[in-house]
Amino acid sequence: MTTHDDTQQKSVSEQAATASSTQGGYPTPAWRKAYHQGSRPDLRVPYREVLLSTGGTVPLYDTSGPYTDPAFEPDVRRGLPPLRDAWISQRGDVEDYHGREPRPEDDGLKHTAPRGVALTTGSTLDNLDAVFPGRPRRPRRGRDGGAVTQLAYARRGIVTPEMEFVALREQMAPDAVREEIAAGRAVLPANVNHPESEPMIIGSRFLVKINANIGNSAVTSSIEEEVEKMSWATRWGADTVMDLSTGRNIHTTREWILRNSPVPIGTVPLYQALEKVDGRAEELSWDVYRDTVIEQCEQGVDYMTVHAGVLLRYVPLTARRKTGIVSRGGSIMAAWCLAHHQENFLYTHFEELCEILRAYDVTYSLGDGLRPGSIADANDEAQFAELTTLGELGRVARSHDVQVMIEGPGHVPMHKIKENMDLQKEICDEAPFYTLGPLTTDVAPGYDHITSGIGAAMIAWWGTAMLCYVTPKEHLGLPNRDDVKTGVITYKIAAHAADVAKGHPSAQAWDDALSDARFEFRWEDQFNLALDPETARDFHDETLPAAPAKTAHFCSMCGPKFCSMKISKTVMDMFAGDDAALNGDDATVVAGMKAKSEEFAAQGHKVYLPVVD
Amino acid sequence: MTTHDDTQQKSVSEQAATASSTQGGYPTPAWRKAYHQGSRPDLRVPYREVLLSTGGTVPLYDTSGPYTDPAFEPDVRRGLPPLRDAWISQRGDVEDYHGREPRPEDDGLKHTAPRGVALTTGSTLDNLDAVFPGRPRRPRRGRDGGAVTQLAYARRGIVTPEMEFVALREQMAPDAVREEIAAGRAVLPANVNHPESEPMIIGSRFLVKINANIGNSAVTSSIEEEVEKMSWATRWGADTVMDLSTGRNIHTTREWILRNSPVPIGTVPLYQALEKVDGRAEELSWDVYRDTVIEQCEQGVDYMTVHAGVLLRYVPLTARRKTGIVSRGGSIMAAWCLAHHQENFLYTHFEELCEILRAYDVTYSLGDGLRPGSIADANDEAQFAELTTLGELGRVARSHDVQVMIEGPGHVPMHKIKENMDLQKEICDEAPFYTLGPLTTDVAPGYDHITSGIGAAMIAWWGTAMLCYVTPKEHLGLPNRDDVKTGVITYKIAAHAADVAKGHPSAQAWDDALSDARFEFRWEDQFNLALDPETARDFHDETLPAAPAKTAHFCSMCGPKFCSMKISKTVMDMFAGDDAALNGDDATVVAGMKAKSEEFAAQGHKVYLPVVD
Repeated sequence: MTTHDDTQQKSVSEQAATASSTQGGYPTPAWRKAYHQGSRPDLRVPYREVLLSTGGTVPLYDTSGPYTDPAFEPDVRRGLPPLRDAWISQRGDVEDYHGREPRPEDDGLKHTAPRGVALTTGSTLDNLDAVFPGRPRRPRRGRDGGAVTQLAYARRGIVTPEMEFVALREQMAPDAVREEIAAGRAVLPANVNHPESEPMIIGSRFLVKINANIGNSAVTSSIEEEVEKMSWATRWGADTVMDLSTGRNIHTTREWILRNSPVPIGTVPLYQALEKVDGRAEELSWDVYRDTVIEQCEQGVDYMTVHAGVLLRYVPLTARRKTGIVSRGGSIMAAWCLAHHQENFLYTHFEELCEILRAYDVTYSLGDGLRPGSIADANDEAQFAELTTLGELGRVARSHDVQVMIEGPGHVPMHKIKENMDLQKEICDEAPFYTLGPLTTDVAPGYDHITSGIGAAMIAWWGTAMLCYVTPKEHLGLPNRDDVKTGVITYKIAAHAADVAKGHPSAQAWDDALSDARFEFRWEDQFNLALDPETARDFHDETLPAAPAKTAHFCSMCGPKFCSMKISKTVMDMFAGDDAALNGDDATVVAGMKAKSEEFAAQGHKVYLPVVD
Repeated sequence: MTTHDDTQQKSVSEQAATASSTQGGYPTPAWRKAYHQGSRPDLRVPYREVLLSTGGTVPLYDTSGPYTDPAFEPDVRRGLPPLRDAWISQRGDVEDYHGREPRPEDDGLKHTAPRGVALTTGSTLDNLDAVFPGRPRRPRRGRDGGAVTQLAYARRGIVTPEMEFVALREQMAPDAVREEIAAGRAVLPANVNHPESEPMIIGSRFLVKINANIGNSAVTSSIEEEVEKMSWATRWGADTVMDLSTGRNIHTTREWILRNSPVPIGTVPLYQALEKVDGRAEELSWDVYRDTVIEQCEQGVDYMTVHAGVLLRYVPLTARRKTGIVSRGGSIMAAWCLAHHQENFLYTHFEELCEILRAYDVTYSLGDGLRPGSIADANDEAQFAELTTLGELGRVARSHDVQVMIEGPGHVPMHKIKENMDLQKEICDEAPFYTLGPLTTDVAPGYDHITSGIGAAMIAWWGTAMLCYVTPKEHLGLPNRDDVKTGVITYKIAAHAADVAKGHPSAQAWDDALSDARFEFRWEDQFNLALDPETARDFHDETLPAAPAKTAHFCSMCGPKFCSMKISKTVMDMFAGDDAALNGDDATVVAGMKAKSEEFAAQGHKVYLPVVD
């Protein structure tokens, strides 16, 4: 029963419940959730099966989580089932413990203000239950601070269930997965406190991944919207989601997102730390930062952007730039360094930070705080100086068994993109590169998903392992639901184009299936094999709305009277089995063609079509 | 007065007049039409001046024609002023003549059916006036069949007013323009019967150009829509427009487009020729085709796609493809070759065709009828066999003083794009390459402006001179007004990203101007410097609609409390003139930084901002 006292909690729960109503189901009934069975009963790897009108199916990688399984009853107040719970506990190397006590400032509230979300009346649950009504849980960490990272296991020769999961997901041998992780060329972000996530891998030998940023800011947005955006982004293919919230309710928003997220969640702890010191960068300290990191480790954040490469001596290198420092984290640390005339505390405390992250298996995403904010500033001294430091920090992190990826730009014209990739590989020992775009020109605000999609496709072809999406609202405002979808689809295109260019066999098979459907005028199959079936179908309907047009053997480009596809089919039939002609053997062809021509005439030159076949 | 008798003509005129109401003016008052004055009074080269809030201006290339000049009174019934009339007649090498008589089948009508557009009552004007009410004109051609092509003049060392025009437009030396044309590395499409067009040049040493396809089909669309689409496409930056109409009123639609087009118009004469034989490819003949070409030459078409490279012996090479022949023109000629068991009549009559085109200065766009229609078919034997023939035909054309460009694919995965460009340069003697995309993956119908924008940017960087746009409706339907705009903006992004990557100085200057505006929070300047100011402004309004937000020194990404740009400015001010710090001189920096730090503290650590400055 609803009483006045729990209005605030209801409000959050109900908001989220509303969001959940939109979470069920795929955009087309021709998509069906399916599973590869692994070596143990609880290891089932989801994928999407596209059902074709021919009776065949096409298997596709799927990031949408249990929501799209009709057998699953979504309830965002309860969260997703903890898929990895048994795998984690069976390793016998974690302990649960009474975690850090929640504080009002975790949610951006003054110390005296009431919490944004009221405690459940009479609750006897642990601290996290204060902000989330789901199943009781205490945080876990490596026993005695031991490394419980996939990197540590991989180095010891252990193929974890997580590794087997990604091996099945990527159609690779499990030991090849282990080897890539052990070598630091791939990361498997999987905090022991985020057992709800479905394991995925980020590395240049695997399918290119994409990240979607969400997050409220001081200006706009709500918890409801952020949970919904997370689920919406994964529905269309986001492999990870970063929660970049900066306003109120940061802690609570993140908790709801984590408990409901089937993909790894990344954050920039510095943003929350800054909120805790009321936005005064110079009041930041290692203590406040450390506290925030532990808070987020206990919640289950899978990877964290850490701007430890913004060194004091690099800051002046940005002074002659056209657009200075555009990274939020970079400018916060630059301000701190200047205010204190001290080296970046993230750099000086880096080994201590490694000790924390290794106990939860949180992956570093070493932030490029000095990335260029305009193509004029691309590949400059500041950017590459920081990259050198990131390479050094990556080696330190791995020496502590902490997984690492390296963040990259930003704004880079096409002719300077490859240098970024080549240098990163060399300097950072092939640690996975995680780039934002890059945008290849600055002149198209409102279309930066496209200016950056171009750069993203190129850099992914050359080796970037994960692409951070850019939405049409970049530089102008915060993305809404439509912008998130447009950003995700654009980046799925870039990632997939790169997979094809890199020669990934499953990538080409998808294109082939769609091309076959197109050539055979299987319109419904063409829609259902599309990255976005809804839009493909809607566009077709605009010109040819009638249902018969969905089975018509023509399209609105040429109309019913003439069709190049039909002519091609005639050609194929004519020359089937005629090796001389097929191989362009001129001498034989000339003779053979005459016979074919007569045959073609005898068929009545059938290159035309009935209006509806 | 309107009577029943001229209803049909009124209908066309009035439709077009409605369209014209949307033709006036730029999308923002901060864009102003300006002109570079050439060496003669009637040689004024238009450009767009972006007025900045700082009092400065940024000059940008402009394709919108007189419509955006407030001094011009648009009237689509009269057409645009014949800018080049005097230049053409003063050369003294053309004659006007009584052109080909119009026939009902020119407009796709049966020989006995009434014309789509009624003659003006009591008209004594020449044939073209039957379909267009504007100023009387007779077709012109080279006297005695002489070559009146820009190539012929360039080879004779003549810098024509057209060449001077493009030199001013591209900020190149006039003789460099002449040289590129003379060498066949660039074309300046400018039919003597389309004096309304503003000269532009297509070649890899110039700014990358884009083409927008329009055209009705048997299924949909009207004359009104096509004229409006042409003007709309040039408003957003289309450098040329191809009219690919296939249904009724082909002749009349084209006439209205040509008389109102400030950019060169391209066509595929084969489409109209096929209509004249009621869609029966095997009934096509050189005579019907020749008649159609002359009809279009007299109207003023500036370049024509000719599928002369689809040779009989290449057709079977497509039989093992995934998607066969997808080019409409290619499949028509393949069907003809097979039906007759004869060599492509466009190939066998190619020199005759050259003799016609040279008398009007119509530029060849040698069509790639065997281009791949799926990434699986990219770079195959059929495609490259045809390319070899196109190279051969290009040499034949130039030997007749006819300008030539070469069309390219299509669907090509990223790793196979460069081979296309390199082979084309080698085989076709660096004749301008004019490519459709290419699409880098087949899996995103509904987003093929993006799948192809990626490939377009890359191939343009590597040397493609003109990009044929692809709209979101590709493969699904015919583009509407919004799709045309999206296609044009996407391709302007691709072309401009390539200009930047190629090191074009004016290209980088545009990005720099926008980045400066962004860094200095000059929101209005940022919108006005955008390729699409309307969308940029709308997106900003969605998050921060209030007018003060347009002058606010923050954006919705971080909110008012914290701003990375502001920190950067502080850094810049601190280190201005401090060469040691700016150059990363470590020893000196350490000492200097302490002083700076104190200075920063003394300023009160001002890295925050008032909500509205």
